[in-house]
Amino acid sequence: MSELEPTADARETLLEKYRRGLVQVYTGNGKGKTTAAFGQALRAVGQGFRVCIIQFMKGRKYGEFLAAERCLPNLTVRLSGLDSFVMRDNPAPLDIELAKQGLALAREAVASGDYEMVILDEINVAVDFKLIPVAEVIDLIQTRPPAVDLILTGRYAPPEIIALADTVSEIHEIKHHYNAGIKDRAGIEY
Amino acid sequence: MSELEPTADARETLLEKYRRGLVQVYTGNGKGKTTAAFGQALRAVGQGFRVCIIQFMKGRKYGEFLAAERCLPNLTVRLSGLDSFVMRDNPAPLDIELAKQGLALAREAVASGDYEMVILDEINVAVDFKLIPVAEVIDLIQTRPPAVDLILTGRYAPPEIIALADTVSEIHEIKHHYNAGIKDRAGIEY
Repeated sequence: MSELEPTADARETLLEKYRRGLVQVYTGNGKGKTTAAFGQALRAVGQGFRVCIIQFMKGRKYGEFLAAERCLPNLTVRLSGLDSFVMRDNPAPLDIELAKQGLALAREAVASGDYEMVILDEINVAVDFKLIPVAEVIDLIQTRPPAVDLILTGRYAPPEIIALADTVSEIHEIKHHYNAGIKDRAGIEY
Repeated sequence: MSELEPTADARETLLEKYRRGLVQVYTGNGKGKTTAAFGQALRAVGQGFRVCIIQFMKGRKYGEFLAAERCLPNLTVRLSGLDSFVMRDNPAPLDIELAKQGLALAREAVASGDYEMVILDEINVAVDFKLIPVAEVIDLIQTRPPAVDLILTGRYAPPEIIALADTVSEIHEIKHHYNAGIKDRAGIEY
């Protein structure tokens, strides 16, 4: 594994004294939210950023986790969920506990100074499913060291979070191969 | 750099005799199209796929290019454009020439058997700007070895390509930090 050094352009960005990190949200019902966040992470890592991704409600190492773990030392991925679906109206106590642990990890990552970018994958869904109170996510956004870039993904982004964000992309499903009966595939869905 | 081997799940997918690769399109005016494609590439690489990305109308190594070049031997990225904007109504002959070269690279990558996934970044814009005839892209999609996954990105995806795709995600800009006067940043835009 080879450590990446910040490029001259990135160093300028990183050192900019009054730099304010951006809050980005990827939401909507279409394919591409988590992958957009990981693509953003890859871009940032390529410029020398250190990026931490916390995956809420996921308990399985997807391909992006495996690639990061093996090949990208500046991209840390942590899982904080089970490898089973959460029941929207009846989450298990362990689902709630793991989401809370994920939020604690997120606070730690944001405050640590170890990362220029922190990505909270599927946190919008964790809020919508009431695993995490929206007030705690708002607090995390508002109290973070201002230079840290934050990305929040998942359907159902709450309006309070959209209001705080600098950039919000809503991904609409125009078509999905699921509807043609094509099932989950390694390399595509996970 | 460490080579990634296909996981058991991915091997099953890759070896599936009658596997039909998917055609995905990421379009729309919001941030996240190229990053979604690179995130998908990272996922696929993590599962052991070999992925080739051809970037149309781009002449600069963005962060994702740098990360791939340095850390991800199974992710090949090729540029086929200039590091300047193409004039929509008056493209330079060199813009057209480079887009054509990109298309030739794409045909080669798709036919080579060296890649399970080929990503044509910004090709929709190259078609919209008339650097490439849509008929040639349709031909590439229809004549590819059927197992190859294809991803096409960029605004203005033509209806003929949307019709052929298995999955189409349209990324809408709800908000963008550009509108608050925040300029391009290393690690975020490139």
